[in-house]
Amino acid sequence: MLYLVGLGLADETDITVKGLEIVKKAERVYLEAYTSILLVDTAKLEEFYGRPVIVADREMVESSSDEILQNADKVDVAFLVVGDPFGATTHTDLVLRARELGIEMRNIPNASIMSAIGCTGLQLYSFGQTVSMVFFTETWKPSSYYDRIKQNAEHGLHTLVLLDIKVKEQSLENMARGRKIYEPPRYMTVAQCAEQMLETEAERKEGICGPESLAIGAARVGAVDQQLVVGTLEELTKVDLGKPLHSLVLLGTKTHELERDYIRRFAVDTATFDNIWKKHYEAKS
Amino acid sequence: MLYLVGLGLADETDITVKGLEIVKKAERVYLEAYTSILLVDTAKLEEFYGRPVIVADREMVESSSDEILQNADKVDVAFLVVGDPFGATTHTDLVLRARELGIEMRNIPNASIMSAIGCTGLQLYSFGQTVSMVFFTETWKPSSYYDRIKQNAEHGLHTLVLLDIKVKEQSLENMARGRKIYEPPRYMTVAQCAEQMLETEAERKEGICGPESLAIGAARVGAVDQQLVVGTLEELTKVDLGKPLHSLVLLGTKTHELERDYIRRFAVDTATFDNIWKKHYEAKS
Repeated sequence: MLYLVGLGLADETDITVKGLEIVKKAERVYLEAYTSILLVDTAKLEEFYGRPVIVADREMVESSSDEILQNADKVDVAFLVVGDPFGATTHTDLVLRARELGIEMRNIPNASIMSAIGCTGLQLYSFGQTVSMVFFTETWKPSSYYDRIKQNAEHGLHTLVLLDIKVKEQSLENMARGRKIYEPPRYMTVAQCAEQMLETEAERKEGICGPESLAIGAARVGAVDQQLVVGTLEELTKVDLGKPLHSLVLLGTKTHELERDYIRRFAVDTATFDNIWKKHYEAKS
Repeated sequence: MLYLVGLGLADETDITVKGLEIVKKAERVYLEAYTSILLVDTAKLEEFYGRPVIVADREMVESSSDEILQNADKVDVAFLVVGDPFGATTHTDLVLRARELGIEMRNIPNASIMSAIGCTGLQLYSFGQTVSMVFFTETWKPSSYYDRIKQNAEHGLHTLVLLDIKVKEQSLENMARGRKIYEPPRYMTVAQCAEQMLETEAERKEGICGPESLAIGAARVGAVDQQLVVGTLEELTKVDLGKPLHSLVLLGTKTHELERDYIRRFAVDTATFDNIWKKHYEAKS
């Protein structure tokens, strides 16, 4: 049996009891470690599980899935995924390959940022499609995310923006020369994301995510030091939410006063918040 | 400290290790049991936790929150919620009340149907806003959900439809007479939901959810007997997915061939699926 086990969001104790039982008895345990990260390292997981874990990078999952699936028709193989196993689509590939080999699969759901973002106090029913924000470079500033946020905004919906992580990335030079030397991991911050959104807005000028748009920055959701900050995108370019992982929610205008009451205490500046809320959000949808 | 602990979706072992530790040491443990249900009963939870659990119905949470929060500034109180603690907005109220009383709060995220629905193989990025479907009556057939599905459909997005549950409901007669006699619990099935969608479509006629629209019925997500069925809404009116809880996803036209490959094996009838897919979905967005 192939088990896809969700690990949740913060640390080793966020695995479910069911998931932990599977990890303890599986013949081999793989950890997918490129679409997201836990806030603790693999050594900590191994200690907690009392057994070794094989870190599976993108290359391994994409090109050596048969190795991962080897004899999984006879023994149990656990494939651990940060968040929920189906939060990223990368793994549907693995399941399809398992099917071809006649291997059964079970998934053990867990918290995903896509629903855990409800901890902001915003209603999950009022979110439109989720978008991703990649690191802009001098020459590459993709703005297709802007169109999707716009679609959400037209109906007053909130947008969850998932921020880029770069793990085991090669520099262009190293890639060109075929050298497997990797850059240090990089995790986008809320401030960087806010800055890029303002940059796109300055270019597109459709009034979707300007300096007065309210957003929530969320850091380390589910961890003891979880942090939420509410402010305009302008304000958020200056916040420091500390260590990864960060996410951002751009507020839609379809808001409920319970949402306002909930998020107000996280405001960078309460007077600004009240002011902007009245001007652009209150009873606007 | 007030702990909001997510229980996940299926049984007592879906709680996280972190959540279980909190439940074991809290002074009082409440179970919120009206926005959703686990697939096991309270006795089973109590046995697993090794301690009593106080079932908190809607009335108790809404009118007796101070009782729940009593001395939570000094001792730990755990408030258990099926799924993720912030999946339903009912509990932001409780947190706001706790804040007023100067009580600190921590939330322990867990799987929510809003992200666990990724187990269908559909990309979570391609979902628009989630809608709820209530039980229609002879005289009350609310169709505001149709407008929201339409907004999603306009952008080719999938829609998760959450199905009504009726727990501890009074009949109109008993309510009028002030008799606290409750009807047996009712859980909407995928077949009932499909039928109601066709009913609304027949009335609205905007081509959003007609007899040839593809949808996925999901039952008992995360449980050993999880079941997925793919078919037209017409076909789904005839499926029996067994025990609760059920959910439904209406497919958008913005589909990926990986999604097709993944869901095809769950088709009620593969020939119909292939046919409809080619006609209405393939390369349509």
